Amino acid sequence: MKKSILLKATLLLSLSLSSLGFTSAALANDGKKYRWKLAETWGPNFPIFGEATKNMAKMVKEMSNGRLDIRIDSSNKHKSPLGIFDFVKSGQYQMGHSASYYWKGKNFNILFFTTTPFGMIAPEQYAWFYHGGGMELMQKVYGKYGILSFPGGNTGNQMGGWFKKEINSVEDFKGLKMRIPGFAGEVLAKLGAKPTNIPSGELYTALERNTIDALEWVGPSLDLRMGFHKIAPYYYTGWHEPAAELQFMVNEKAYNSLPKDLQKILTVAMKTSAYDMYIQSTHASGKNLASLQKDYPNVEVRSFPKSVMNSIVKANDELLTEFAAKDPMTAEILKSLNDYQRQVRPWTNLSDRAYLDNFDAK
Amino acid sequence: MKKSILLKATLLLSLSLSSLGFTSAALANDGKKYRWKLAETWGPNFPIFGEATKNMAKMVKEMSNGRLDIRIDSSNKHKSPLGIFDFVKSGQYQMGHSASYYWKGKNFNILFFTTTPFGMIAPEQYAWFYHGGGMELMQKVYGKYGILSFPGGNTGNQMGGWFKKEINSVEDFKGLKMRIPGFAGEVLAKLGAKPTNIPSGELYTALERNTIDALEWVGPSLDLRMGFHKIAPYYYTGWHEPAAELQFMVNEKAYNSLPKDLQKILTVAMKTSAYDMYIQSTHASGKNLASLQKDYPNVEVRSFPKSVMNSIVKANDELLTEFAAKDPMTAEILKSLNDYQRQVRPWTNLSDRAYLDNFDAK
Repeated sequence: MKKSILLKATLLLSLSLSSLGFTSAALANDGKKYRWKLAETWGPNFPIFGEATKNMAKMVKEMSNGRLDIRIDSSNKHKSPLGIFDFVKSGQYQMGHSASYYWKGKNFNILFFTTTPFGMIAPEQYAWFYHGGGMELMQKVYGKYGILSFPGGNTGNQMGGWFKKEINSVEDFKGLKMRIPGFAGEVLAKLGAKPTNIPSGELYTALERNTIDALEWVGPSLDLRMGFHKIAPYYYTGWHEPAAELQFMVNEKAYNSLPKDLQKILTVAMKTSAYDMYIQSTHASGKNLASLQKDYPNVEVRSFPKSVMNSIVKANDELLTEFAAKDPMTAEILKSLNDYQRQVRPWTNLSDRAYLDNFDAK
Repeated sequence: MKKSILLKATLLLSLSLSSLGFTSAALANDGKKYRWKLAETWGPNFPIFGEATKNMAKMVKEMSNGRLDIRIDSSNKHKSPLGIFDFVKSGQYQMGHSASYYWKGKNFNILFFTTTPFGMIAPEQYAWFYHGGGMELMQKVYGKYGILSFPGGNTGNQMGGWFKKEINSVEDFKGLKMRIPGFAGEVLAKLGAKPTNIPSGELYTALERNTIDALEWVGPSLDLRMGFHKIAPYYYTGWHEPAAELQFMVNEKAYNSLPKDLQKILTVAMKTSAYDMYIQSTHASGKNLASLQKDYPNVEVRSFPKSVMNSIVKANDELLTEFAAKDPMTAEILKSLNDYQRQVRPWTNLSDRAYLDNFDAK
């Protein structure tokens, strides 16, 4: 009797499921609700960077109909803006949002996945990630930590920074105290500057009180709200971060525990949010540059003199050669980056650059 | 007794559902399987453009776990490469993939959503679509046909075309038979050229037999396989399509019939596939330009002389003024495009352009 009831119940169950419209494909979902946490380097309501994580989590929630719900903890919550890598590695957070070059102390090779001085601009670099072997190289570096790494949003070309005094020759870098993190700092140190890293919240005061003589932050998209233009009149064009790409990290075990459809929803949402941030950065830069030029006409926007640029290029090349000689993985990444740039740049020159040069007076 | 079995069965059903992990959120899906069809302008296995539709449909299928399955019909199947708009309008196909400027015969204003001569480059134009009011204007034009329109992939900056003879002065356009569709054709006609449109399959023969003296197609990403470089030695840089965006169209009623999560999955997949195509175009252009220069060193790549460019700019401006005076909607779209370009271009000049000019010898 029990058997018969069970049989009928099973029959009813399958009938009910099919009347609800569940197909075998839908049943392949485990249907479980996953609650994840993401730790980000940024403070709460941080523009653009912080919007990239919210945009990603919103897409995931809506596309998965709530089956994957990602809570975002900003730095005020987790208190460790530069602890994101360790949070994701340990699984304390399933996801993180930060910048790859912040982890160069753990693994020097990791810094090349953000941007490189004199490297590729944003569309070129995305082409390297997705068609030139960049994703595979990045995973080769991150794999040993049990972390999956993905592009997390591009700032576009960053400005060279705010200077209190004009740079007329390479001698002007001697003794110059400048906030400039990453590889670019090592390049300027080679030229006699004193690079330092200072958290963003203290930057304005440091510049105002002459603790530093210059700093780089991002560009018009995010610099304007910091107020640097009120105390440093020279705004230089960039060389050191032609396409800074932020980064989503996912704990590999957590990722593997998701059903296939949620894995796909997550990776597509991260990819879209990264592209979206590049476009939002383009928009905000244009808008804020216009405000800057209207409201602060005394800001002097300029490029370094040719002789200064040549010295920076030379110092950069020498440092890269040194590092490549030390570690075969560094050499492999640099070869991939350089070969790809040599392939794609003639197209950029022939298309957008020629077009701008031909039809847009500076 | 029947009642008791039903009760137990219901109990078992709900137990089974919860042990399967179905939550109320998952049940909010209708669980139905949707089978859609997309008609594309392109032939089967068409590179890049055709890969954009496959990329989109694959993302949708995997993210929805098969609940939304989109079959792609290429032009060999539906036999009407330029009938895509009508297919989607009538609902014969739920979706289409094509280029907006192909529908200028139905509504002149529709052409501005592909690209405009002397207009924005790709990241600028995406910023206009998503932050500058472009999506809203596009929908204002498409809404009256019951069609939702979305960016469908960018070719990047298109080349100015293949010419059998060099262009030294604006006089050289007089009587020149050139395949160049859209608004750009009208501009060249004003300068005395004889623009024409010829299907892509007949282009090579037309150029070889002197039916036409010149043609534009796309750029290195797609031109190389057409063989034009073997019969027309001059390859000119572009002015007429600085960022040609293809287009996904969705029948509005079909879209509204989808559950919310599938709507979101579809819109995110279209957006990602569009961005992806821009990056794939960048990659393929770089790769194919390198092959072209290696295997066909006699191809002469150049820009039009300054005097010729000035004449083209002038003719274009005059035509736009004429059209804007005829229709308030044209005027509204052109004002939006021009205002946005004026805002974003100084940033492009200060960032990527200054960077390329400073650190990359031509």
